[in-house]
Amino acid sequence: MSLEASAVGELERRYRSVRAASERLCVPLAPEDYVVQSMPDASPTKWHLAHTSWFFETFVLEAYLPDYRPFHPQYRVLFNSYYEAVGPKHLRAERGLLTRPTVAEVMVYRSAIDEAVLALLRDGASAALAARIELGLQHEQQHQELILTDLQHAFAQNPLAPVYTAYRARGATLGEAPPPLHFVSRDGGIEQIGATNEGFTFDNERPRHRVLVEPYQLASRLVLAGEYREFMRDGGYRRPELWLSDGWAAVQSFGWSAPLYWRERDGEYYRYSLHGELAVSAHEPVCHVSFYEADAFARWAQARLPSEAEWELAYAATPVTGHFAEAEAWIPRHTPSGFGSAWVWTATPYVAYPGFRPEAGALGEYNGKFMCNQLVLRGGSCFSPESHLRATYRNFFPAAARWQVTGIRLAR
Amino acid sequence: MSLEASAVGELERRYRSVRAASERLCVPLAPEDYVVQSMPDASPTKWHLAHTSWFFETFVLEAYLPDYRPFHPQYRVLFNSYYEAVGPKHLRAERGLLTRPTVAEVMVYRSAIDEAVLALLRDGASAALAARIELGLQHEQQHQELILTDLQHAFAQNPLAPVYTAYRARGATLGEAPPPLHFVSRDGGIEQIGATNEGFTFDNERPRHRVLVEPYQLASRLVLAGEYREFMRDGGYRRPELWLSDGWAAVQSFGWSAPLYWRERDGEYYRYSLHGELAVSAHEPVCHVSFYEADAFARWAQARLPSEAEWELAYAATPVTGHFAEAEAWIPRHTPSGFGSAWVWTATPYVAYPGFRPEAGALGEYNGKFMCNQLVLRGGSCFSPESHLRATYRNFFPAAARWQVTGIRLAR
Amino acid sequence: MSLEASAVGELERRYRSVRAASERLCVPLAPEDYVVQSMPDASPTKWHLAHTSWFFETFVLEAYLPDYRPFHPQYRVLFNSYYEAVGPKHLRAERGLLTRPTVAEVMVYRSAIDEAVLALLRDGASAALAARIELGLQHEQQHQELILTDLQHAFAQNPLAPVYTAYRARGATLGEAPPPLHFVSRDGGIEQIGATNEGFTFDNERPRHRVLVEPYQLASRLVLAGEYREFMRDGGYRRPELWLSDGWAAVQSFGWSAPLYWRERDGEYYRYSLHGELAVSAHEPVCHVSFYEADAFARWAQARLPSEAEWELAYAATPVTGHFAEAEAWIPRHTPSGFGSAWVWTATPYVAYPGFRPEAGALGEYNGKFMCNQLVLRGGSCFSPESHLRATYRNFFPAAARWQVTGIRLAR
Amino acid sequence: MSLEASAVGELERRYRSVRAASERLCVPLAPEDYVVQSMPDASPTKWHLAHTSWFFETFVLEAYLPDYRPFHPQYRVLFNSYYEAVGPKHLRAERGLLTRPTVAEVMVYRSAIDEAVLALLRDGASAALAARIELGLQHEQQHQELILTDLQHAFAQNPLAPVYTAYRARGATLGEAPPPLHFVSRDGGIEQIGATNEGFTFDNERPRHRVLVEPYQLASRLVLAGEYREFMRDGGYRRPELWLSDGWAAVQSFGWSAPLYWRERDGEYYRYSLHGELAVSAHEPVCHVSFYEADAFARWAQARLPSEAEWELAYAATPVTGHFAEAEAWIPRHTPSGFGSAWVWTATPYVAYPGFRPEAGALGEYNGKFMCNQLVLRGGSCFSPESHLRATYRNFFPAAARWQVTGIRLAR
Repeated sequence: MSLEASAVGELERRYRSVRAASERLCVPLAPEDYVVQSMPDASPTKWHLAHTSWFFETFVLEAYLPDYRPFHPQYRVLFNSYYEAVGPKHLRAERGLLTRPTVAEVMVYRSAIDEAVLALLRDGASAALAARIELGLQHEQQHQELILTDLQHAFAQNPLAPVYTAYRARGATLGEAPPPLHFVSRDGGIEQIGATNEGFTFDNERPRHRVLVEPYQLASRLVLAGEYREFMRDGGYRRPELWLSDGWAAVQSFGWSAPLYWRERDGEYYRYSLHGELAVSAHEPVCHVSFYEADAFARWAQARLPSEAEWELAYAATPVTGHFAEAEAWIPRHTPSGFGSAWVWTATPYVAYPGFRPEAGALGEYNGKFMCNQLVLRGGSCFSPESHLRATYRNFFPAAARWQVTGIRLAR
Repeated sequence: MSLEASAVGELERRYRSVRAASERLCVPLAPEDYVVQSMPDASPTKWHLAHTSWFFETFVLEAYLPDYRPFHPQYRVLFNSYYEAVGPKHLRAERGLLTRPTVAEVMVYRSAIDEAVLALLRDGASAALAARIELGLQHEQQHQELILTDLQHAFAQNPLAPVYTAYRARGATLGEAPPPLHFVSRDGGIEQIGATNEGFTFDNERPRHRVLVEPYQLASRLVLAGEYREFMRDGGYRRPELWLSDGWAAVQSFGWSAPLYWRERDGEYYRYSLHGELAVSAHEPVCHVSFYEADAFARWAQARLPSEAEWELAYAATPVTGHFAEAEAWIPRHTPSGFGSAWVWTATPYVAYPGFRPEAGALGEYNGKFMCNQLVLRGGSCFSPESHLRATYRNFFPAAARWQVTGIRLAR
Repeated sequence: MSLEASAVGELERRYRSVRAASERLCVPLAPEDYVVQSMPDASPTKWHLAHTSWFFETFVLEAYLPDYRPFHPQYRVLFNSYYEAVGPKHLRAERGLLTRPTVAEVMVYRSAIDEAVLALLRDGASAALAARIELGLQHEQQHQELILTDLQHAFAQNPLAPVYTAYRARGATLGEAPPPLHFVSRDGGIEQIGATNEGFTFDNERPRHRVLVEPYQLASRLVLAGEYREFMRDGGYRRPELWLSDGWAAVQSFGWSAPLYWRERDGEYYRYSLHGELAVSAHEPVCHVSFYEADAFARWAQARLPSEAEWELAYAATPVTGHFAEAEAWIPRHTPSGFGSAWVWTATPYVAYPGFRPEAGALGEYNGKFMCNQLVLRGGSCFSPESHLRATYRNFFPAAARWQVTGIRLAR
Repeated sequence: MSLEASAVGELERRYRSVRAASERLCVPLAPEDYVVQSMPDASPTKWHLAHTSWFFETFVLEAYLPDYRPFHPQYRVLFNSYYEAVGPKHLRAERGLLTRPTVAEVMVYRSAIDEAVLALLRDGASAALAARIELGLQHEQQHQELILTDLQHAFAQNPLAPVYTAYRARGATLGEAPPPLHFVSRDGGIEQIGATNEGFTFDNERPRHRVLVEPYQLASRLVLAGEYREFMRDGGYRRPELWLSDGWAAVQSFGWSAPLYWRERDGEYYRYSLHGELAVSAHEPVCHVSFYEADAFARWAQARLPSEAEWELAYAATPVTGHFAEAEAWIPRHTPSGFGSAWVWTATPYVAYPGFRPEAGALGEYNGKFMCNQLVLRGGSCFSPESHLRATYRNFFPAAARWQVTGIRLAR
């Protein structure tokens, strides 16, 4: 069954828009900036640009064009991230050793893939093909966020503290002092969370299923940097009783004494951001904290982190508004909504929903195989594209990860 | 409020019995055997013997005797395992570098602590003191299991394959071929799991709370080595699609191709046990597998691992019978019960029950601070003392751990 | 005492020529190629270009211009290689994480330094200043060789096997089969080696001093790849009796089975070079071998490596002719001379000559502090600029280093 | 040609005496003390006792008894140190994981080997057999020193600071303040060093050969701890200009700020010794310093370390008197001689003498294959058996090694 022309046109517009958004992120970069991998968890910009094209090539063009000839036989290997079923992969930790293909060559690769995908789409798209393309776009949006987090991490290694954009966040842009935090009570009961089959969702958001939730309270906003400073002043990083055992070990072995990117100078805290080094404002939501720090902060505050069900039930009916990547202001600021600014660490380990069925074939590796040793995060950040988020969205990272824009919302 | 004399007498008997059981485990050892730490996760026998005494000294004698003078000031540091609130600790990975105190000196330490604890007990025990002593005994029983798992690991490094006991398990002792596996269906609904305040339980088993469980099926017995061999023959260790991503990485980096302690010779599998090297019998429950292997096996078998609630609800009303340490037969064998032989990996990450409250003070570190990056195991093993187990008992280990007696029970 | 105008003019010409030679090496590069550090021992091209300028800035401009203001205050740190007396240094292993300054910015830095140095020079140069500039030029020539070896190493990590130059070496360019190897006998006695104070030399070449040398024989040419293949066929990499203990450990832990950059395909050997992947010719001198491999080969060939005195005495009176960087043919080829094509590993540990006096001040760190755990190499390679070499020149690398153009000349 | 009865008797007496000396070292030990390996460079006492017996078994019994059947087939592997030609070896770093064979079993092994060697000897010894036995005894004496250094290292890891012997060295035993240091001038010239074929020597001491030595001065005694304290007070460990580059890296990465085993408490220095923790006396020769520290001290003192030829020529004609293991006083003290108390780091890398020929067969691995990345040490220590030393003796260790009894003698 093929799509109507209007749906095809809409998908084509969306395709062009998402692909262009990735390239727009690169406008401020010098070719040198695209190359570096500052840690194994991060990837070079150039790799992200190529990998997202590889995804379309592998899962759209190869899947739907019987005679498709790969753009470059070795790109299949170089730009495979983790799909074992697709074949061999270049070593993740060595992505930053590849000076070739150059940025210009990667851009040629992107164009060639774009042309082929759009030709295929216009040639009469089935619902299945449209869904596959939409998956590729959602995937690309995830990598847009990673391009930003990985660039920030790479730039942060440079004593010159490069500024990614000329735009310079000012205290003023953080607006008025956010209102004091209060807790909003919610009834418990047997409720439903997770996504139905309507609209695009990832396999890990499904199926919609029943959960038993006891009555709870959720904080009215994110924890602010000023509140986090109080935790620090109160010896937060020196008191093992506040920490999980693995968290305390991380504090010791990595020497954590503040969120990632924070630097103390003459008693003041600054933090490296994509706008360069900025003074930490008491009014901005704290971010770049690990799950361990979020959990320790919550214990110190005599509260706890919410479960993912608690978070989702609170925001299931809310429109997705807030502070997102489209604003091109790369630090969190207070917004009244549950979305954007900073991802919220939940207390929920990332496991399959009851009845979870991964996508068929290699795409089954997209989410399912990571369901161990990670925590669920909810809500999106100021690095996330707005159209990428929804209340059922499940992000996930290991407990020690700090380079994502991750913050804290309390529950009790 | 003090205990009645009969209760004191009963506790004294139990104290003597549990402490003696630890020492009985050491009878077959040469002094040299007590010293070695074969990996950071394991500890020397000597350390276990001293640490369990340190536990009584710290949490019973120091807590209940105002003028208590430590047996040796440095033992406080040397034999503190992980209690930050108690003070500094000797580096975990360096426990095997301590030749002193000698075994004989540790035994003197044990006697001195025993004498003081029993004197305190006889001197009129409060319920609180009795509870604290019981906690020390449960703690000691946990270390009895660890003495055995850690000895097995240390002996397994020795090409001489030392035999811990003269008793040699024979195929015959495994009994008849176990019955074929079938799945037992159970209704779902809102049920209760966890411990009440009656009788001894660890804080992590409490509070008893409601859970929502969908109808499910639980396998009638543990997975057998013969069944696991089929998985191996079918390329189980070479097919990434069966594995979690972290699991596949473990297979690659550790070179796993069989359960821990298995060795292939001329097409046959043998495994190192405390009885020495034995041929693997198709009829014995498979053990020494990681969560990753259990999970991959379940996927291969088109089943899944049970949640901890599913396991507990199935065995909540069952008496604790099975194959335990008291049998002194150190490999699993089929028994019809849910307890003993091999711990069962559940699919449930180890987190706090809703409303969890850790013990007060340093003892709050006993369980709570480990609630991250681990999985719950249920049921006990052939290394567990029988009186230590119950249906609400929650054991926990990281997903890659293989040196415990850990096996597989399927669900779907 | 100032230099005559003609000497100034000559030095200026040489300055321009050496600096230009560095930049000429970069012509074939894309900006992305300048950024990568493929191992801690290597550095990005961009770093080499900046560091050699830093050297002139620090040791010429700062030393001779009282009011000199640094081009950029942080370049002092970023581009300091190892001079503790100059101040802090950016971490060596993190040179590849710096995307900024960009190539263009580094080129601006180079120009600014050039202008200032030349202005200073024209302003009436003292002999001391001229000597300092000459040191800077010799230093730059060393880095020209490193730019090439480090690029080759970085490119070799890329499965696309990038070609640095369009020029493609052909078997033909290796010329006729080299003549068979014979040994040339030389008398022993008390001789002199090392440099006098005439002309430029590094401090480590001085003072000229007496050595006692027994009669010896030196091979008439470098060992060829074909001869090395015989060693390999004879189990060279599998016979511990041929190897030093540390060498055998390196074979085991790095999995060496051929020189660096060699790859076997269908029984044929190819090697990655700056011309791309080329078939190994039996007639080319073997290179990219470690001292361990050179030593093992010599033992297999029932010979030994020469001492540095033996090498120097043999070539002290010979003009520096051979195959050097100026030929822009980036693989060794047979030449009758003792110079060029491939550095020769000597059996002599790199230590101070009797009476050695390091340069004064921070420049004393140039050579002296490395006089431990390294071996002396002699003669230069096809990556060395011709005007940089002389018979007394002492190059030095650790025994396991293979990414330099290092070959073998036998003695006995 | 067989030995005369008196020579046989003499050798038998020496055999018994050397073997007994090893066991005498173990008298103060508990069985637990024999097991531990505190770092890969060290070995458990139990292993030393077994390995030295393995040496006799392999190189005497197997070599001279055609039908010899090994005492235990796996001991061949377990107790092979590094002889590739003999066959596989147990992993060096895992020697400390072997609790079996127990000490008692190793002692039985020793007795069995002793009986067999002595029977063979009495059965009519050839000169070759006698030489082989003498090699085994010299080998055993080397391991006697290692038993002590390795025990000291293992005990030093224990916060209980175990005392190996009841004997407690007192300041008094160091005697009067040693005389002030002066330099003794010696003529240069063409001299001879190295051993002739008379009497037992290791292959690495041969052949005797000519060396060219310039006139030099050698310090009259070892550097004392008080002198070394001055170096420390003068910032010795904080001034990079005093250090070789690798040495400075070691200072940084290992956090060196004093010799190994030194501990500061309230401004005073103590050091762990086999007599327990002792206050450092200004009058004792400093020891447990690396080559890097010796070299930095010498540079600070405006002197240098002697070459091995300079040392040997100074003491070639001196009888071996001094402070040796037989005194059972386990810290250095001043003696007027060149021998004993502490090994002297020379500036000479450990390489083959011209014309060096390693022993035939597997014994060729004894010394020759280590001739890289090590420095020569001379003179012996208070842990060395007196009958083991001679002026031509070449000991060797890597530049960073500190756990041997290594000290400093200056030259210039």
